[in-house]
Amino acid sequence: MAQLRIAMAQVNPVVGDLEGNCAMAADQVRRAAGAGAHLVVFPEMVVTGYPVEDLALRNSFVSASIKATHALAERLAADGLGDLPVVAGFLSRREGVGARFGQPAGAPQNSTALLHQGRVALTSAKYHLPNYGVFDEFRNFVPGDALPVVRVRGVDVAIAVCEDLWQEGGPVTAVRAARAGMLITLNGSPYERNKDDVRLELCQRRAREIGAAVGYVNMAGGQDELIFEGDSLIVDAEGDLVARAPQFEEALLVTDLRLPDAPVPAPDVREADGIRIVRYTASSAPAEPYTPAEPVLTPRPDPVSDVGEVYQALVVGLRDYVRKNGFASALVALSGGIDSALTATIAVDALGADRVHGLLLPSRYSSEHSLADAEDLVERQGITGRTVPIQPMVDAFAEGAAGTGVELVGLAAENLQARVRGTLLMALSNQEGHLVLAPGNKSELATGYSTLYGDSVGGYAPIKDCWKTLVWELARWRNAEAARRGEVPPVPENSIAKAPSAELRPEQLDSDSLPDYTVLDALLDAYIGTDRGYGELVTAGYEPELVERVIRLVDRAEYKRRQYPPGPKISSRNLSRDRRVPITNRWTP
Amino acid sequence: MAQLRIAMAQVNPVVGDLEGNCAMAADQVRRAAGAGAHLVVFPEMVVTGYPVEDLALRNSFVSASIKATHALAERLAADGLGDLPVVAGFLSRREGVGARFGQPAGAPQNSTALLHQGRVALTSAKYHLPNYGVFDEFRNFVPGDALPVVRVRGVDVAIAVCEDLWQEGGPVTAVRAARAGMLITLNGSPYERNKDDVRLELCQRRAREIGAAVGYVNMAGGQDELIFEGDSLIVDAEGDLVARAPQFEEALLVTDLRLPDAPVPAPDVREADGIRIVRYTASSAPAEPYTPAEPVLTPRPDPVSDVGEVYQALVVGLRDYVRKNGFASALVALSGGIDSALTATIAVDALGADRVHGLLLPSRYSSEHSLADAEDLVERQGITGRTVPIQPMVDAFAEGAAGTGVELVGLAAENLQARVRGTLLMALSNQEGHLVLAPGNKSELATGYSTLYGDSVGGYAPIKDCWKTLVWELARWRNAEAARRGEVPPVPENSIAKAPSAELRPEQLDSDSLPDYTVLDALLDAYIGTDRGYGELVTAGYEPELVERVIRLVDRAEYKRRQYPPGPKISSRNLSRDRRVPITNRWTP
Repeated sequence: MAQLRIAMAQVNPVVGDLEGNCAMAADQVRRAAGAGAHLVVFPEMVVTGYPVEDLALRNSFVSASIKATHALAERLAADGLGDLPVVAGFLSRREGVGARFGQPAGAPQNSTALLHQGRVALTSAKYHLPNYGVFDEFRNFVPGDALPVVRVRGVDVAIAVCEDLWQEGGPVTAVRAARAGMLITLNGSPYERNKDDVRLELCQRRAREIGAAVGYVNMAGGQDELIFEGDSLIVDAEGDLVARAPQFEEALLVTDLRLPDAPVPAPDVREADGIRIVRYTASSAPAEPYTPAEPVLTPRPDPVSDVGEVYQALVVGLRDYVRKNGFASALVALSGGIDSALTATIAVDALGADRVHGLLLPSRYSSEHSLADAEDLVERQGITGRTVPIQPMVDAFAEGAAGTGVELVGLAAENLQARVRGTLLMALSNQEGHLVLAPGNKSELATGYSTLYGDSVGGYAPIKDCWKTLVWELARWRNAEAARRGEVPPVPENSIAKAPSAELRPEQLDSDSLPDYTVLDALLDAYIGTDRGYGELVTAGYEPELVERVIRLVDRAEYKRRQYPPGPKISSRNLSRDRRVPITNRWTP
Repeated sequence: MAQLRIAMAQVNPVVGDLEGNCAMAADQVRRAAGAGAHLVVFPEMVVTGYPVEDLALRNSFVSASIKATHALAERLAADGLGDLPVVAGFLSRREGVGARFGQPAGAPQNSTALLHQGRVALTSAKYHLPNYGVFDEFRNFVPGDALPVVRVRGVDVAIAVCEDLWQEGGPVTAVRAARAGMLITLNGSPYERNKDDVRLELCQRRAREIGAAVGYVNMAGGQDELIFEGDSLIVDAEGDLVARAPQFEEALLVTDLRLPDAPVPAPDVREADGIRIVRYTASSAPAEPYTPAEPVLTPRPDPVSDVGEVYQALVVGLRDYVRKNGFASALVALSGGIDSALTATIAVDALGADRVHGLLLPSRYSSEHSLADAEDLVERQGITGRTVPIQPMVDAFAEGAAGTGVELVGLAAENLQARVRGTLLMALSNQEGHLVLAPGNKSELATGYSTLYGDSVGGYAPIKDCWKTLVWELARWRNAEAARRGEVPPVPENSIAKAPSAELRPEQLDSDSLPDYTVLDALLDAYIGTDRGYGELVTAGYEPELVERVIRLVDRAEYKRRQYPPGPKISSRNLSRDRRVPITNRWTP
């Protein structure tokens, strides 16, 4: 057995910021070298950020990524770090393939590079291209066909990318034939509730299958609608967990391992399962024996605090969306209700109270407690709060319409109020530069209980993937957390306790037109999350009329959902990116 | 040689309307039978409509499609049409495959059914699954593996689906080995400018390759952002055009052909190129000799009227979007400018003047000619026109903001006017039930010269895939067409002739901040349409500063584009469905 000190850089690149990402990577390599690492590994497509989506089809972008990766290798050598092998994901292309009808233009690949001695010494590309849920990789990439095996300090380390670990066959299956001592996978694996357990179990299973240790390096941070969880880890060949990085935050996980000596001479296996095996020797002599450091094994929160994990994910998603899009502050309309209260609270935790601005926009239908609860929240959290009563604007529209003989009543009058609020938010956003946050929850989005261009305005919707019942849980969890820390609970108790209402007409309550949220959310989750149709839902015990009504609401709300701002995804079916359904659709199950 | 009378039903199904689509299909079969057809063929997925997108992943939807297809076969037999073989596309599934990670849930397939004697006698599925541009089929379907060959009146007819004709290899290649006398392909092939020529050439090439006649049956009509062009056609084994249906409208193309006698016994070829060959005999005896009818050969407009073809596509797209989404009328804000004038004109051609409502929303910055030109348009076209001056509402917002110490100036004040207009449009839409049309053109969308929740409100954007220069061409073409017919030209000459302006501040002109549209559109098309980067654009002769500025505008406008309403696609890169780029993106080429 040989010793190997491996550094896994759990980092947070920005899509498109090639220069910034490479500077960050160089910095991490310096840190890893300082810690005595023998090998440094970065996540999937760290050079370009991930996911690049259709940017992969831009020839100039692919060229820029290749150039930046070569420049990074040179820069590391110039910094005296050329001896240290570095594995990094980048965007590349399959050379020598002509344009083929139906194939991604320019044959781009989701690639890995081994940087060594100032050069890109070896490249390979992802073989399994996921094209489901949030992934569109079959659309944007052509697959690789090789398993690279790098000899470092007398240990053979194989390299694969993300989905290659999840699917059967391909490079991971070839690891055993290649007789590598360890498999490293580079990942951009988005957060989903409880996915960390699945991820660990997968690594354990694969390690036992291939008879080698598995290192899993992931990104940490938000990118558009995705949140990368971090949770980088190493399991040994028996599947036992050896090291684990924290969730949601950047980390350099340096771990000492004992791994099988690389066979000498190297096995003459050129191919296995249709995968070419390509080898490179960075250093063949084992490391001089040394005393290994204790591995970092960040404890996972126990299952009870799953809600806390979601909260943390939402904070990270918002923080990075604001930062990566170049905003300095956020603006949120405070109605006194739970959705806007939770949205503001997440924003304060992500950005700090001084960068969150509340706008109180009472109408003639706002109850007294609404304004009081919103003011209470402003005070508890120390954010800016400004009040603009909306009636004069609503009246001006009503008069304008009346001038053409139209009286705005019913839904038109209700929506008008929401749109006056939306216009005010956008006016202040334009004037002062804030990112407007839309406070809609997933139950609302699913059923279409929101107003286009009204409460749906904004650039980001922090709780759009949270059912209403989860919104309450999150608020309660956050308050309990504050109490535990001896701080003022940020969410007004009354916002949590009171019956939800849009307050767009007198005495309106959500319960007038919707069932209790406990029932509604379970039904919605069964319909959207687990794809049950009318028949199955009725068999499961839901009232037929309710099922029919709810399904109809969901199917008719598709247009509104498309127009809704993006938001952090925390479940596998989140109503937006994952679900592409026709607007013109006459079918309900 | 045997005679065969084939009926190709170029129809316009509605996605999800299984009942309506099957009733329509039954009606077409009756008509075809009345015309003495020996074989009836429908387009791709006619039972469900196309494209179904993620509905394919709904198990209950797949089951409903299968059930509806069987019911259609029974119904035809009950109507005394069971002897007549009918080929129809439907949504089905590959049976006997378990759930596999990364594979579309439920293994749905884009399938064909042969309906005969009250049964689904034979099924197969699309082999090549396009996953580029507007297509996401690899995401939603699993591929088929068979080429069905149906013996009808002593002729062997092979069946394939759309993309199978476009790509190399697969079922179409197997046709020669199967020794079929004709290949029929079922299509849902979206319109693109000049694609009809490409389509004909492809059919001709394939016919010569496989040594058999090729029949191409396509849909006609709009579905969401797609417009199906019709243009169904037949070429003989030498590649000569035999019959052709009109563009954009429904038609039953009945054609008499002379085709090779089917080999007796049937060739014992079970497989070719990895494709299973499956056979079914509907009738082995050739038809009694009869005098063939003259084939229908709809002439194509000559290349000069390409603009007229685009205009027709836009009218069809709007008409079907309104109808299929259950609206009765459309509402459009008339600024006196060319974009809203063309939008209204298309709407009137699609829906009739009595179903189009104009709203004139002058502000203090509207020039005198704006109102006059808008009124001129109302009068020329005989639509409803109502005027609501927006200043009182704008003032109410300014006062509301001032109440919190904020003065709205510059962009905030400009956008406010657009948003007041948007709110008025939506109020009238809610009150009266119109679909609001957004008048943005492609140059505007590309560069981000529109206001979120302002001029971008609405449910459909008829000219969003038309460069500004094309907008002028379309208006001129439509006026010339009116003159040709001796009618009043619908678009006011002044709207065409005057310099474009958003009129959101005094004396504002588009040319203040943008180059001449002839230059801009060419540059945008080079950047977006043909994917050239900064370097290539500068080499091509564009001013470096202009290239940099325009690229930056385009890349920064991604969020606005996503929030823009859908509209008919007329080019292969239309900025919305076809282009999925990260919002958080720091890269410009």
